[in-house]
Amino acid sequence: MRSYTRYLTLETKKKHEFVNITAEVQEAIWSSGISEGIVLVNTMHITSSVFINDEEKGLKKDFIEWLEKLAPVDGKYNHNLTGENNAYSHLWRTVMGREVTCAITKGKLDFGPWEQIFYGEFDGQRKKRVLIKIIGE
Amino acid sequence: MRSYTRYLTLETKKKHEFVNITAEVQEAIWSSGISEGIVLVNTMHITSSVFINDEEKGLKKDFIEWLEKLAPVDGKYNHNLTGENNAYSHLWRTVMGREVTCAITKGKLDFGPWEQIFYGEFDGQRKKRVLIKIIGE
Amino acid sequence: MRSYTRYLTLETKKKHEFVNITAEVQEAIWSSGISEGIVLVNTMHITSSVFINDEEKGLKKDFIEWLEKLAPVDGKYNHNLTGENNAYSHLWRTVMGREVTCAITKGKLDFGPWEQIFYGEFDGQRKKRVLIKIIGE
Repeated sequence: MRSYTRYLTLETKKKHEFVNITAEVQEAIWSSGISEGIVLVNTMHITSSVFINDEEKGLKKDFIEWLEKLAPVDGKYNHNLTGENNAYSHLWRTVMGREVTCAITKGKLDFGPWEQIFYGEFDGQRKKRVLIKIIGE
Repeated sequence: MRSYTRYLTLETKKKHEFVNITAEVQEAIWSSGISEGIVLVNTMHITSSVFINDEEKGLKKDFIEWLEKLAPVDGKYNHNLTGENNAYSHLWRTVMGREVTCAITKGKLDFGPWEQIFYGEFDGQRKKRVLIKIIGE
Repeated sequence: MRSYTRYLTLETKKKHEFVNITAEVQEAIWSSGISEGIVLVNTMHITSSVFINDEEKGLKKDFIEWLEKLAPVDGKYNHNLTGENNAYSHLWRTVMGREVTCAITKGKLDFGPWEQIFYGEFDGQRKKRVLIKIIGE
């Protein structure tokens, strides 16, 4: 079994932003030399997400508007009594997910036609890291 | 390390439907000859899910009624301005999840007493694929 | 490739409770002798979760208050017509997630500064199990 580790660093300009990281993940797979196995991609932070969905502008707006309905930015939260103002970011990340695990087949992400990997930032404008861990042969 | 890949094809009769695929996953594990490792099961589409829960008729109805409350089928969505009408399906799938990763111990799904793997279709009546990737020894 | 399996048994005093299991997972990694690979941590039950977030008291209260809004404990559910009263627990667990997959690098959980692994119990006061499966070298 071989393994390979890479860290991506991202700093979004906006507080809430989606970044398509599919090409970076595929590039890491090529660098690993692994052709059959799995790749784990996760945010290393607790107010952001890694998830798979469609690269479509309207849908990205829908996600933010929907999350705002499920957990309003200016809602009342116990966490914010600590001096933080990002309780909603923790909840949004919970809905969107921390990580994806993807199959690698013949050296490539084994994806359906519309699958794209996104980093979802919900408390941005500062440096965050994404971990890519690949295991296989 | 050994690996094994299988694709399931499903076409549900209804727009929204849950299909229990536990037996197919266990069968793939037997075919792989792998007795210790993990199995990744994911939908290859972005308007459907793979998740684990209980095989109980009422609960399946609850899931659909609850998802309809969280993201109404006929809500207003930016994604639908592209001509699509399935924005809600993307949101439902986000709640329910894209994938499960399960342990294989002694050649079997290492499951609790009520765990069952479901494919959750939220935009059905057309062919969709599920990927099963197994790695281990 | 090596693999290692451990089961944790938990019985919470309260119906709804979060238990930090990070140290137990790290201890299992040490016991496995695996220094590069991945660890899968999942609940074996369908009314509880394993997830990653922050160890902060207020946030834990926020999670419960938020879940109660998304799926009220005393809502009307089809599942409860079977004599059960835990339909909401199935929905809460769906929001919070069944499992996490984490990277192991140099013998340790490869985590960001605030990541902690929690068992989330939504129908407690009875024995439940968590599965830790480690694969790697």
